[in-house]
Amino acid sequence: MISSPSNEKVKRIVAYNAKNRLRKEDKVFIVEGIRMQVEIPVDLIWETYVSESFLQKASDKDMEYLRSLPLGYEEVTDQIFKKMSDTKTPQGILSLARQAEYSDEDLLTPARNRDGSSTGYAPLILILEGIQDPGNLGTIFRSAEGAGVTGIYMSSDCADVYNSKVVRSTMGAIFRQPFRYTDDLLGTIKMLKDKGIVSYAAHLKGTKNYDELDFTKGTAFLIGNEGNGLSKEIADAADEYLLIPMLGQVESMNAATSAALLGFEAARQRRIG
Amino acid sequence: MISSPSNEKVKRIVAYNAKNRLRKEDKVFIVEGIRMQVEIPVDLIWETYVSESFLQKASDKDMEYLRSLPLGYEEVTDQIFKKMSDTKTPQGILSLARQAEYSDEDLLTPARNRDGSSTGYAPLILILEGIQDPGNLGTIFRSAEGAGVTGIYMSSDCADVYNSKVVRSTMGAIFRQPFRYTDDLLGTIKMLKDKGIVSYAAHLKGTKNYDELDFTKGTAFLIGNEGNGLSKEIADAADEYLLIPMLGQVESMNAATSAALLGFEAARQRRIG
Repeated sequence: MISSPSNEKVKRIVAYNAKNRLRKEDKVFIVEGIRMQVEIPVDLIWETYVSESFLQKASDKDMEYLRSLPLGYEEVTDQIFKKMSDTKTPQGILSLARQAEYSDEDLLTPARNRDGSSTGYAPLILILEGIQDPGNLGTIFRSAEGAGVTGIYMSSDCADVYNSKVVRSTMGAIFRQPFRYTDDLLGTIKMLKDKGIVSYAAHLKGTKNYDELDFTKGTAFLIGNEGNGLSKEIADAADEYLLIPMLGQVESMNAATSAALLGFEAARQRRIG
Repeated sequence: MISSPSNEKVKRIVAYNAKNRLRKEDKVFIVEGIRMQVEIPVDLIWETYVSESFLQKASDKDMEYLRSLPLGYEEVTDQIFKKMSDTKTPQGILSLARQAEYSDEDLLTPARNRDGSSTGYAPLILILEGIQDPGNLGTIFRSAEGAGVTGIYMSSDCADVYNSKVVRSTMGAIFRQPFRYTDDLLGTIKMLKDKGIVSYAAHLKGTKNYDELDFTKGTAFLIGNEGNGLSKEIADAADEYLLIPMLGQVESMNAATSAALLGFEAARQRRIG
């Protein structure tokens, strides 16, 4: 059992929690809590740590899960676990996991039905520009998976998806939803256009409501920063503007809400054929 | 200019920021930042405070706004403003505002178009059980106004809508979206039923997709707590279960996402008639 705060493994986990750059360099991230833990694809798990009191209270199912881990797990004292944890009230289980790497092709592969079979649907892409709020980004991943989004492209100034708040907010979608960061969002839009994928931006200049456009073909939605929306450069690159019609006096929808409304409208159209 | 931290007004604002109960007793809340400030209906503003540096940098438009306030404004030093503020980087303007009080009738009044005219649409209600996250609650208010929700009923264990994080997340909807808290959500569902309003709960037992049901008549959507969903008691009281069909492996949508998807589906049906 690890009980020393100067243990190298403990120090490394603490450093990964604190430093985005270090996680990126080593291509790892930290997953906390039993709910998210059981969602991690087993081949991505490098190290798993459990606290003394987690083991004392663990259910048969928890123990069965822990024993099934190919690389095993290590016990640490509650005090050490608290040091390693990024949450105020740690649940007592965390893993160091390998970051997934996706190709453009992965982001264009038809979404899967709940039984794992392919939907055969055309690509459905989200292009995120400067999404800053970790909760928003995680919620976008969660909604995207449910809507059958095939891939998420993010500008490099978006929040880090491997930030622990983002990971939690995805409710597991982080492990299944293909995504890529890019320094060249314009190039991405052009690459998609070359593949016949039409890009849409929610914009005041739009003339058609989002439910009046055909999203059954290859479709990409551009979603802008929470405060400022899309930059002019990116909005100008869209093939078409659309409107999310709103009643009352509210000026816009939250970025995660817009992504969900557009994604699920595409899902509805594809479902009813 | 107020420069003393022992000033009674300063002490009162600090106390209101810290104590939900005190705000409730005095039926007031605090609104920070110029963006939200200009959305406050003028007759709800009791006191307005601006920092020295806010006044130094104020635009002509800001000054015109400040001079238009019937009860005026008070200048405070930057140091004092920082004490009064609930944010890390205060913008230098905040108001003490009166909480609105709505009747059941207010929550059943047809939503308004953007030009202020009545849509004439049937009541569209959200019933929230135990929504805990301030960001979620604020986002629900924002989406609700856009979708034409006529009223939001909340169980008394929902977050406080006058919490500063909630107020900010509503992006102004807090000032326009009628709502009520209730200790008796079951009684509310029954009251609505007596008025011919059909209540729907998203539920695994649902057999119809949310886009296959008719929401053009009086409609209420039940939205449950982020972690646990609806309690059995409340879900059982719904007239009908519906499904939000999801692809992939994600188990549910975020509460604010569900509310937006359902609200905007009702809006879509009402718009296309």
